[in-house]
Amino acid sequence: MSGVIVLFTDFGASDPYVGQVHAVLRREAPGVPVIDLLNEAPAYDVAAAGCLLPALAAEFEAGTVFLCVVDPGVGGPRRALALELDGRWYAGPDNGLFTLAARRARLRRAFEITWRPPRLSTSFHGRDLFAPVAARLAAGSEQGLTPCVVDDPGPVQCPDDPPRVVYVDHFGNAMTGVRAATIPALAAVHAAGQRLSCASTFGSVAPGEAFWYANSIGLVEIAVNRGSAAQVLGLRIGDPIEVLG
Amino acid sequence: MSGVIVLFTDFGASDPYVGQVHAVLRREAPGVPVIDLLNEAPAYDVAAAGCLLPALAAEFEAGTVFLCVVDPGVGGPRRALALELDGRWYAGPDNGLFTLAARRARLRRAFEITWRPPRLSTSFHGRDLFAPVAARLAAGSEQGLTPCVVDDPGPVQCPDDPPRVVYVDHFGNAMTGVRAATIPALAAVHAAGQRLSCASTFGSVAPGEAFWYANSIGLVEIAVNRGSAAQVLGLRIGDPIEVLG
Amino acid sequence: MSGVIVLFTDFGASDPYVGQVHAVLRREAPGVPVIDLLNEAPAYDVAAAGCLLPALAAEFEAGTVFLCVVDPGVGGPRRALALELDGRWYAGPDNGLFTLAARRARLRRAFEITWRPPRLSTSFHGRDLFAPVAARLAAGSEQGLTPCVVDDPGPVQCPDDPPRVVYVDHFGNAMTGVRAATIPALAAVHAAGQRLSCASTFGSVAPGEAFWYANSIGLVEIAVNRGSAAQVLGLRIGDPIEVLG
Repeated sequence: MSGVIVLFTDFGASDPYVGQVHAVLRREAPGVPVIDLLNEAPAYDVAAAGCLLPALAAEFEAGTVFLCVVDPGVGGPRRALALELDGRWYAGPDNGLFTLAARRARLRRAFEITWRPPRLSTSFHGRDLFAPVAARLAAGSEQGLTPCVVDDPGPVQCPDDPPRVVYVDHFGNAMTGVRAATIPALAAVHAAGQRLSCASTFGSVAPGEAFWYANSIGLVEIAVNRGSAAQVLGLRIGDPIEVLG
Repeated sequence: MSGVIVLFTDFGASDPYVGQVHAVLRREAPGVPVIDLLNEAPAYDVAAAGCLLPALAAEFEAGTVFLCVVDPGVGGPRRALALELDGRWYAGPDNGLFTLAARRARLRRAFEITWRPPRLSTSFHGRDLFAPVAARLAAGSEQGLTPCVVDDPGPVQCPDDPPRVVYVDHFGNAMTGVRAATIPALAAVHAAGQRLSCASTFGSVAPGEAFWYANSIGLVEIAVNRGSAAQVLGLRIGDPIEVLG
Repeated sequence: MSGVIVLFTDFGASDPYVGQVHAVLRREAPGVPVIDLLNEAPAYDVAAAGCLLPALAAEFEAGTVFLCVVDPGVGGPRRALALELDGRWYAGPDNGLFTLAARRARLRRAFEITWRPPRLSTSFHGRDLFAPVAARLAAGSEQGLTPCVVDDPGPVQCPDDPPRVVYVDHFGNAMTGVRAATIPALAAVHAAGQRLSCASTFGSVAPGEAFWYANSIGLVEIAVNRGSAAQVLGLRIGDPIEVLG
């Protein structure tokens, strides 16, 4: 087990939340590397975040512990989950964030986190609940976990159907929830009223031209060479796209 | 002593300043964990930052060293301070940033940082002066520190009086300088021309509805369920609020 | 050799790219400190980034490994380089990003990275190629590198001639590519139609007043006391400036 703890949250890269989580992890899991994978996951948008998560998680080794928080219902009745999916652990809310990751896994074990910390704020379970649990998981402990059943397809609409934009990066590239390997190599993609062809590299189309390509985590991504697809095409998270066989 | 060094600055989460501070800390305090708590503290706004600091610092253990820089007067005559407040250390400028933290501490020791590094830039004391001092403090050394008296209420207006917004996060939640424990549990808060009731969780009010709640660091925070209080109410750092008994 | 690995990229401080690079470095160079120096280097702007790099790199010790990616031609025919310049290593694309750093170095060795990883995405050589190479360099290995000649002045126009704005920070301060030590101490700077005098500290001019000063990495920087030079003067990356003897 590598014991790396990876953060996937909507806590914001600039706000004083991620640092508080790091402080808990330093205390509860001293010496375990912590990686900020994404702290600007689509805010409140469980469906989009849940579609991005399995594509990103696939880049990490077995034994990695993902601390995942996109949790608009924090403080409410939703359960807290710990899932082992193909050797990787996930801790976070039972609100559909893990639906797609769980469905795609070959091996899965599901637990409800029944342990509660001495202090549990109503609004920051990432710090108070999920971080200590992630620390334990990184140490190989399943203490405080109770086996449970996770509904499939889970409590939210399947986040990859219909296909849509799930992330827009600072370049303006728009990731979709579609795995490139599941569509024909020369398929066109229809987005924002335009038919986009596939290109293998940014430099293979003219500056300013829009195209789609299989991005580095295997998703169909809409881009513009040396420009912003989000601006040029007016794309935002949640916008539908269509794959044209 | 835990030896963790915590950054609380307005250096920006995206600019090439925090990394330079980390480089100094890696060199001067090898092996000591460094946590980026907040590097987007309100720029130039010593009063707001000074109000946020004690609420955030309370989350950390004794032995923590806070490297605190909101320092519009850098390069001018302001002193450099190292304070020990209830077992936590703070290094930063003597411009009022620590006024509230010092006032609330039960045990305090104050030092002027009289040591000077071989190279001291006029604009980046965080890197050149405070980082090496923080590294020494994390190692338990008080070398280069001269005991001094810190004025109370200090050189700036008390940063929590009158009460106001001291931070707005990327969700649009507006933290105020008011500690929730100091006001009646069912008090209303008046902000941006509206009377806001208290709610315990985001999910307990309708989407789009504004409310206040005791946030995870104990401050009165104005929020909107699944929306941005900053946008809906037009709130910004420095805006006054009123607690209606 | 210190073995510190320093990131200088345009991957974005908020996007899920830097974390993937950290994951590779944790795996390939366990225990080696990794410092995020700048992940918001001017996007696609090799000339501006190439001007900023040597000024920032000078703050780091010999033995440091810089993983540098501003790479609009990724996936195309540009070579991958590893350079040793005055005891510091640089890995990144051969597109002019290192031209200025190489020209200023007294001792330089140049290598083409001829090694290729088992998986090489077309769009993320920072993760797939440069990170593993940086890990090896930090371990003192030159495996997979083939000595080569680097053209001087290199494939892009020299990024410091004519002088221009190369970075704007979140305060709105505008760094130029001009090294302050190369111009007269009392020179005026002409930018955005204004003649700006030199000041030694922000506090030595009136709030709202524009000036230039030698910044903490030795560059001529245009600033406004307690304000944003970028806003007040309308400055952006690439804008020309003139030093008035």
